[in-house]
Amino acid sequence: MKRTKVVDLLKDAALIGSEVLAKGWVRTRRGNKHVQFVQLNDGSTIKNIQIVFDMAKFTDEELKPVTTGSSICVRGLLVESQGKGQTCEIQAESLEVYGTADVESYPLQKKGHTLEFLREIAHLRPRTNTFGAVLRVRSTLAFAIHKFFNERGFQYLHTPLITASDCEGAGAMFQVTTLDLNNLPKDEEGKVDYSQDFFGKPTALTVSGQLEGELGATALGQIYTFGPTFRAENSNTPRHLSEFWMIEPEMAFYDITDNMDLAEEFVKYCINYALEHSLDDITFLQEMYDKDLIDRLKFVVNNDFVRLSYGEGVKILEESGRKFEFPVHWGTDLQSEHERYLVEEHFKKPVILTDYPKEIKAFYMKQNEDGKTVRAMDVLFPHIGEIIGGSEREENYDKLLARIEELGIPMKDMWWYLDTRRFGTVPHSGFGLGFERLVLFVTGMTNIRDVIPFPRTPGKAEF
Amino acid sequence: MKRTKVVDLLKDAALIGSEVLAKGWVRTRRGNKHVQFVQLNDGSTIKNIQIVFDMAKFTDEELKPVTTGSSICVRGLLVESQGKGQTCEIQAESLEVYGTADVESYPLQKKGHTLEFLREIAHLRPRTNTFGAVLRVRSTLAFAIHKFFNERGFQYLHTPLITASDCEGAGAMFQVTTLDLNNLPKDEEGKVDYSQDFFGKPTALTVSGQLEGELGATALGQIYTFGPTFRAENSNTPRHLSEFWMIEPEMAFYDITDNMDLAEEFVKYCINYALEHSLDDITFLQEMYDKDLIDRLKFVVNNDFVRLSYGEGVKILEESGRKFEFPVHWGTDLQSEHERYLVEEHFKKPVILTDYPKEIKAFYMKQNEDGKTVRAMDVLFPHIGEIIGGSEREENYDKLLARIEELGIPMKDMWWYLDTRRFGTVPHSGFGLGFERLVLFVTGMTNIRDVIPFPRTPGKAEF
Repeated sequence: MKRTKVVDLLKDAALIGSEVLAKGWVRTRRGNKHVQFVQLNDGSTIKNIQIVFDMAKFTDEELKPVTTGSSICVRGLLVESQGKGQTCEIQAESLEVYGTADVESYPLQKKGHTLEFLREIAHLRPRTNTFGAVLRVRSTLAFAIHKFFNERGFQYLHTPLITASDCEGAGAMFQVTTLDLNNLPKDEEGKVDYSQDFFGKPTALTVSGQLEGELGATALGQIYTFGPTFRAENSNTPRHLSEFWMIEPEMAFYDITDNMDLAEEFVKYCINYALEHSLDDITFLQEMYDKDLIDRLKFVVNNDFVRLSYGEGVKILEESGRKFEFPVHWGTDLQSEHERYLVEEHFKKPVILTDYPKEIKAFYMKQNEDGKTVRAMDVLFPHIGEIIGGSEREENYDKLLARIEELGIPMKDMWWYLDTRRFGTVPHSGFGLGFERLVLFVTGMTNIRDVIPFPRTPGKAEF
Repeated sequence: MKRTKVVDLLKDAALIGSEVLAKGWVRTRRGNKHVQFVQLNDGSTIKNIQIVFDMAKFTDEELKPVTTGSSICVRGLLVESQGKGQTCEIQAESLEVYGTADVESYPLQKKGHTLEFLREIAHLRPRTNTFGAVLRVRSTLAFAIHKFFNERGFQYLHTPLITASDCEGAGAMFQVTTLDLNNLPKDEEGKVDYSQDFFGKPTALTVSGQLEGELGATALGQIYTFGPTFRAENSNTPRHLSEFWMIEPEMAFYDITDNMDLAEEFVKYCINYALEHSLDDITFLQEMYDKDLIDRLKFVVNNDFVRLSYGEGVKILEESGRKFEFPVHWGTDLQSEHERYLVEEHFKKPVILTDYPKEIKAFYMKQNEDGKTVRAMDVLFPHIGEIIGGSEREENYDKLLARIEELGIPMKDMWWYLDTRRFGTVPHSGFGLGFERLVLFVTGMTNIRDVIPFPRTPGKAEF
């Protein structure tokens, strides 16, 4: 007999009255000497199916191993439920116990656990309601991303993780080596002899796939990346991971307005897709952690984003009369408090700021004619501030080269990138979205370590 | 006026007779003093759109920069083509040149290039027909994979790339560190003091997400991974990359038969999806590189895979009368020549071999009652041999622990994995597919460096 998943047992009304086979993990068991009730979960949904054991048919001994965390296989009749809170339940006919979970040592007993404690047992936390919900929402969002770009003719480009460039400048990097650190080869000057390393030179883990993404876009038209990215900063904050996933679309023939249109459509699509496909999980998370969650998600989906320049934004902040922790004036990088003021208090809508001072943005952004600003765009969200950063790219070879030289970026890392501007250069644009930022926003969780299965942070590389 | 992509210009009959805007890169220009023909490509399809310049309307000077590799924007009337080989063409009304491509220095002139040469300019090769086609097929296959698992309720699980375990045993690993190699901290014994490294201990790049995948499957039910994986072996072969992408589904409550069913359905689905969605590109690759390509793909899609045990397979090989380079008998690992004999000559169908000797398979595979074999399964394909490797997993705590101790795997790396068998263990299975192997098979390319955008191999980490 074929097993039916819990998600299907609960939603397929045609199954009522038929014999079914359910497999899963016991969340709780309660009852009396006449009847025992087991809440069974198999990971396919946040919801449990109730199994009813008529104790005239089963012995106490048989049910004894059926404790929280144990795994069982139950055959029985699926019937409409008399109890509150569930639509149907299984009247057990037979029981097989696959695996026990010792009550003394199994850490996930019925009582609630702090998120901090669950981080220490990240190998088991996907078995909790919270992390089951978060990981399903994460998976739903990942699929939405692929679907969005696929439907629009973008090619998914796998950019490399190991890189010999150190020019990306987006952050500190992890070195990658096969040299024996306890027995390093040295050159004549006593320095490490990298000619003997695996790639014949120093290599590191990438901080961004954008530059390679531009190579793809200037050949295939529209591409996106979606892969792991690394930062070796020693930042122990609820907003930073050492290893995280990033989405970086890059589009030939897109100017900054096309770029803003795409970014707005993209992020709305993903959030809406999650609301449509993971509403049970999101509702659970709302009830547990964040009462305004669904309203906030709908607020983003249903509002046009306000678009204005950085200069206009700074002016609003200066004239707001608000005392910010970090003073703001033209030229400063905006802090989360500034971004949230604009979004949550001034406009009460998501905001896209454009045309930032070139000094606070990356070398590859298209320079405006004012000589002071670049065609950057940041998308700002309630609750979290910046969620997307992007720009139109500088497609003029001479201007790009001048900026690279001005900033002292080593040309050995740049020749191949400059070739895109030497040969058939085109107007193009792109942006980056930190995937975990999006998952944070959609799940309402507040610590980024709780939206990735096995977080890597300073001092932490368990599991 | 809004740009229309070439793929849409060529297929949307409703556009014929209307004014259109096309943007892209010039592949070739030819003609005479009365009329000039430009083949324009924008990466959206292998096909070019022909632009016709009536030289009564344009000057030679205007067209001078329109050389191979330059980028242009053309407005004009889309009309049915009189020429052979194209359905429609654009009669140019206006021309804007975005970027030139100097004829002396642009490496991708009209003449053909060897794949070896193109590997040296991997930053530009996506602009060629071959690599455009390969990268679009790669993207199509990636989407097929996500779609397949999504439709079946699998959760996409992002397993970590940086790992402190060295137990996976699937291959040599790259070390990841933030220590300054020219100024290493040492402990009292003169060894590297890893307590000062980023994670407080030695870390490396993962060779497989499977063990973490099992953590996901024993919570969420069915999961899959699809991410980068690394091997630091010094293998310079057409079949090995140092950085590649792998798909690893893992399913609770699946036995080896369920696993085989899924693997067969999965790989057929992906190949069929590529045939349906990337036929232009596959047809081009067939014409250029591999005359039997589409027949071979259909052969796999349309045949039931033969299933037999390793023992039966070895018997067939022994009795074949064939002289193999590597002699074969029970207990030897099968070589590609053996696998291909079974698939291409004996059965003339894809083959799934099961129940391999435990000595040649990994510690986590479920042990059969004969004490000699494990519930492994390898899927063997024409042309390339093994494409998928998997197994039912050993779910019995004592048997798994005994095997781990037998093989001397360090327990510090194993406690969290063993917890899945201590707490609510379930029968489960999974498999792994090297993504580039699948792309090789579907594109008919023969060197794995030609099916990933920017290959990493010993000594090579460019771009």
